[in-house]
Amino acid sequence: MDKDSKFVKEIADMNADFPQWYTDVVLKTELVDYGPVKGTMVIRPYGYEIWEHIQSELDRRIKETGHKNAYFPLFIPLSYLMKEAEHVEGFAPEAALVTHVGNTELEEKLVVRPTSETIICDMYSKWVQSYRDLPLLINQWANVVRWEKTTRPFLRTSEFLWQEGHTLHTTEEEAREETLKMLGVYKEFMKNILAIDVITGVKTEKEKFAGAVATYTMEAIMLDGKSLQAGTSHYLGRNFASAFEIKYLDRDGKLKNPYQTSWGVSTRLIGALIMAHGDQRGLKLPPRVAPVQAVVIPVAQHKEGVLEKARELVAALKNAGVRAETDERDQSVGWKFNEWEMKGAPLRIEIGPRDIENSVAVYSRRDTHEKGTVALGDIAAKVPELLDDIHENMFRQSSDFLHGHIVECRDMDELTAALDGRNFVKAMWCGCRECEDAIKAETAASARALPFDQTPIGDKCVCCGKPADKVVYFAKSY
Amino acid sequence: MDKDSKFVKEIADMNADFPQWYTDVVLKTELVDYGPVKGTMVIRPYGYEIWEHIQSELDRRIKETGHKNAYFPLFIPLSYLMKEAEHVEGFAPEAALVTHVGNTELEEKLVVRPTSETIICDMYSKWVQSYRDLPLLINQWANVVRWEKTTRPFLRTSEFLWQEGHTLHTTEEEAREETLKMLGVYKEFMKNILAIDVITGVKTEKEKFAGAVATYTMEAIMLDGKSLQAGTSHYLGRNFASAFEIKYLDRDGKLKNPYQTSWGVSTRLIGALIMAHGDQRGLKLPPRVAPVQAVVIPVAQHKEGVLEKARELVAALKNAGVRAETDERDQSVGWKFNEWEMKGAPLRIEIGPRDIENSVAVYSRRDTHEKGTVALGDIAAKVPELLDDIHENMFRQSSDFLHGHIVECRDMDELTAALDGRNFVKAMWCGCRECEDAIKAETAASARALPFDQTPIGDKCVCCGKPADKVVYFAKSY
Repeated sequence: MDKDSKFVKEIADMNADFPQWYTDVVLKTELVDYGPVKGTMVIRPYGYEIWEHIQSELDRRIKETGHKNAYFPLFIPLSYLMKEAEHVEGFAPEAALVTHVGNTELEEKLVVRPTSETIICDMYSKWVQSYRDLPLLINQWANVVRWEKTTRPFLRTSEFLWQEGHTLHTTEEEAREETLKMLGVYKEFMKNILAIDVITGVKTEKEKFAGAVATYTMEAIMLDGKSLQAGTSHYLGRNFASAFEIKYLDRDGKLKNPYQTSWGVSTRLIGALIMAHGDQRGLKLPPRVAPVQAVVIPVAQHKEGVLEKARELVAALKNAGVRAETDERDQSVGWKFNEWEMKGAPLRIEIGPRDIENSVAVYSRRDTHEKGTVALGDIAAKVPELLDDIHENMFRQSSDFLHGHIVECRDMDELTAALDGRNFVKAMWCGCRECEDAIKAETAASARALPFDQTPIGDKCVCCGKPADKVVYFAKSY
Repeated sequence: MDKDSKFVKEIADMNADFPQWYTDVVLKTELVDYGPVKGTMVIRPYGYEIWEHIQSELDRRIKETGHKNAYFPLFIPLSYLMKEAEHVEGFAPEAALVTHVGNTELEEKLVVRPTSETIICDMYSKWVQSYRDLPLLINQWANVVRWEKTTRPFLRTSEFLWQEGHTLHTTEEEAREETLKMLGVYKEFMKNILAIDVITGVKTEKEKFAGAVATYTMEAIMLDGKSLQAGTSHYLGRNFASAFEIKYLDRDGKLKNPYQTSWGVSTRLIGALIMAHGDQRGLKLPPRVAPVQAVVIPVAQHKEGVLEKARELVAALKNAGVRAETDERDQSVGWKFNEWEMKGAPLRIEIGPRDIENSVAVYSRRDTHEKGTVALGDIAAKVPELLDDIHENMFRQSSDFLHGHIVECRDMDELTAALDGRNFVKAMWCGCRECEDAIKAETAASARALPFDQTPIGDKCVCCGKPADKVVYFAKSY
């Protein structure tokens, strides 16, 4: 019996039922499990290690751009959420409330943070006195809670992990620059670490963050043609600063409210990389976040010298900075091949008695299924090169897929057909909320972003046909 | 006017009012601030970076001993807390309860995790089937909540950050070995990273973790003679495994409950290092967790070439792996000296026009106030040596202080006098709860640990005078 075909059957057909494919993959590869409370997830070690690599790469970039980490409390007084009018409307309905400690009722209800603008602004109002205290550039790694009735692991869960940057500046110009700088950091991270190409731009009024002046976003296309908002960067103007009375004494002796930004990415990124790169066999992990970059499979491992040689290889690879391990479990080689394809290890290395005789190992790439032979003495030099090449190839595929799935549409028929064909739609829009709502109602697609490049592709609104000067990407989304 | 003396006055006299000294130091050095909700703290960038270094050093050790990180949900169904009888008694009164989402009441109240044994056991009961799944070695970095009415930053706060290891084993022997192994890891970390000597041993029944068979602890002496429980490691037996029905099929075909451990340290460690090392001038940070290990102070920084040379020095130091920075603020050199003494930078390096002429810099150690001159060309080699020497000296001081403050006592008069003299008491104890309670009631001291070395120092209980064979450390504690 063909073990491969048996195995593949355990994962739902990604073309027929993409959501089930996703669920099968995240559960069977032990990235994640459902928590006991509805809407919650447990991030298992294999999934959490991906997050650790994401964290370490992002944290370095956040620090290199001058930010420092801090930690603010989980509990926010309910009254704080109320201070910024749009903000409370956006977050109150899904806010988890702490009302009691043991048997004692609290005097004021506490919100479990859905995002930290309010509590951070409260602290900033104590810390900031003078223009000398600005810019204030702080980031936080934390858990946040936004209630969900159903669980889509990594994509929609009541609790998730993220980083949130919160900065204050003396001028609007500097704050707007910061907002775009961090969007740029995110985009570079997506390319060089997750091997995902994205579209960037600004959100519509309808889709922006509750309380922001402008929300910038990066949107990634998933293999089912849906968009995943992978990260956002908000220019908050002085909305929160004035609500929370953050004031500094400027050089001219006047008290002023500073300009503010916030920006974040979350464990959603793990969902993004699964749905941007996976295939019918399971995960296809980008090498730079893969917990196991090269798995060494001993062939005929009971034979003398095989395990020893496999372990030697792993030691040499680790020495070269590669995350490598042997799979010495009491299972067939075929089972292990399938297992590690499903788990998405970028590179598989086989070593058996005959290979040892010839002083070579056989490698197999997860991205192209290309196989090759490499001399044992060269392996520590060759594997890092292969991993870089796999990364480049995966990014190219992601970029090709994205650009191959952008369809320019002139009317609603074209738009509907393009969305049904699992595409992003690029279209002109008049800018009115009614058209945005109508498109959503008819097709379930939303305006994902107004790209920075606003070169018109027509002059009439895709929806109402009236004069239009805005270029927008529409897509169904996660 | 002597700037030093003016400056020192801003921090309360540590001999007269140690708690106020502590509060002054943590606030004035901007390690921490009070959050808006009673009992909560904000860990500011200077404090959080200490935590980041603690995390990275501990995380490496936790992984080197075979554990993997994961993340479990913040919210635990209240019913879970009830499953282990001792556990609920210990944690329910201080448990924060989520009862509503928006305006909707939840069907079951949720506990914001005070510790994660219950929810982790629930997941383990799904994951563990066979002896092949064991040992299961998982660690989590997370925030936890245990309600407090007052705030002592880092020491007692409603929310704090920690790591909690949770492991399962097939035999009692292996689980007990794990419990002690992790205590050993903690003790080694305290010595080699925080430069703090500790006493280790087992807790009395009264003082053990709610639900444990045995709790092992490390206790550090603070400069006021009080003990700070710096980390604990629990052997849980099969208490939780049977309550949560964790069962595995053993080699002999029988279903069995595994043996369990849990162990943790928290942001309390920051409190420990402040109170173990500080002095009247402020913080004295152990070099291996200091955010700034060497601060370079330009003297006459307006003079040509001074700032450039100072920055060159910092670049050379960074290159040598030293966390260095210049202080270029528009303040006097004296002000900066005081500032960085208060902030506890282990090493200060001064460079001015005359030093540049002579191609030297002047260094000053925070631990001994010893000064020296070093050739600019040697500085990248010399500073790491100096930092190691500062570390060793700080550990020696900590160890001398600990051992110099252990007083052997034979009766209650001796015990009371020793405690009044800010000491740890080593004494014989009959083992009965009544004596333990009586000592607590009379002196506010508790049994901190039964040390591993139980060589008797007498044969009568320090409290009741009856025959006693247990050696115990008593102390007041945080």
